[in-house]
Amino acid sequence: MASAVILLSGGIDSATTLYLAKKSGLRPECLVFDYGQRHEREILSARKIAKAARAACRVVSLRLPHKKSALLDKKSPLPAGRSAGEIKKKIPATYVPARNLIFLSIAASYAESVKAGAIFIGAHTDDYSGYPDCRKIFFEAFRKAVAAGTKAGSRIKICAPLLDKKKCQIIEIAVRLGVPLEKTWSCYAGGAEPCGVCDSCFFRARAFNELGIVDPALGAVRKKGKLS
Amino acid sequence: MASAVILLSGGIDSATTLYLAKKSGLRPECLVFDYGQRHEREILSARKIAKAARAACRVVSLRLPHKKSALLDKKSPLPAGRSAGEIKKKIPATYVPARNLIFLSIAASYAESVKAGAIFIGAHTDDYSGYPDCRKIFFEAFRKAVAAGTKAGSRIKICAPLLDKKKCQIIEIAVRLGVPLEKTWSCYAGGAEPCGVCDSCFFRARAFNELGIVDPALGAVRKKGKLS
Repeated sequence: MASAVILLSGGIDSATTLYLAKKSGLRPECLVFDYGQRHEREILSARKIAKAARAACRVVSLRLPHKKSALLDKKSPLPAGRSAGEIKKKIPATYVPARNLIFLSIAASYAESVKAGAIFIGAHTDDYSGYPDCRKIFFEAFRKAVAAGTKAGSRIKICAPLLDKKKCQIIEIAVRLGVPLEKTWSCYAGGAEPCGVCDSCFFRARAFNELGIVDPALGAVRKKGKLS
Repeated sequence: MASAVILLSGGIDSATTLYLAKKSGLRPECLVFDYGQRHEREILSARKIAKAARAACRVVSLRLPHKKSALLDKKSPLPAGRSAGEIKKKIPATYVPARNLIFLSIAASYAESVKAGAIFIGAHTDDYSGYPDCRKIFFEAFRKAVAAGTKAGSRIKICAPLLDKKKCQIIEIAVRLGVPLEKTWSCYAGGAEPCGVCDSCFFRARAFNELGIVDPALGAVRKKGKLS
């Protein structure tokens, strides 16, 4: 059974990507990144999702030499309460310079070491069109860098199966595949429950609203008595 | 004064690269990687070299999800006592999958955060022709990935000024620039003194012999009474 390395963040997109890779008959090898993000809630979610999918999972520890992102620096305010138009106007403060480049590079190293033929990433250009490292042109350039700079060479493919999907389409796929959406975490703030106002909460809520279904993660929180 | 990010390993090549960047009028921002290598001796050397060059220096901590290299796995024997021809026959066991890809990616993130216009790397193809990530074709592909995947885009150049140089030519440049060669460390083994038989010691000793000069690092060890 051929294997594939999956970048797993704990959110809906990467969880759905994991289940897509599984469905296509690949043995998933998940990588979760502990890179000094402002909360560890998403790492916990990623572990739970990998366990539910019966997928191998490793946490990669990394400390970047800077904190130039609202996701790295707790003192930096998280953008909140914005409309989709406002969010898409420019690259948001939650952008982490070269994050996908770094994560994919470590995934390429791992893919070579376990002889995996592909790296799966849950990136998509719909909601966060401001992130330069979520674009097809970047993934293609990265693939060529891996082909030139590793022993594995062009054997390693870069797969971003959700790239052209909207958030609500991704949720539809997730529901169809049985992704444990109640275990996913999207909120940038990382409190006991989602803040409901950050960009990530905004897009998640909007997508569930469009589909006319209740977000199972909110249901899960309610069941635990965290919300009245 | 424009700044440049320098990948500093503690060896002769990266130290010389640091001094070349300084000479060209750039303010160096050194990155040293603590990536689980089998010894920390080179990190110590890199810090000393940065200090001697009065360059800013940050240590990046990273644990890869595998140990598929003789440089990562202490149980894996280091290739030793080989001729140049034998070493060049195939990619050596000291190859770390995608190492330069990972280091350069983190350097790109840092370069963007400190608004540096270039990343300097001491790679060269002469001695270690087996490493795919030390080739011009890789650096060019990587530059394109950075251009496509970061906010800084094509502003960040990748500079490998020693790429076509032989080891003895690099040492000549180092001597001319006043690189503190006595502080450099090349040995893969990382004992109290260089092992003298690993591939890295072999190439270093051969280059000094070709130039007819004594390796100042060995002199430094002798002065400390580590060798009789």
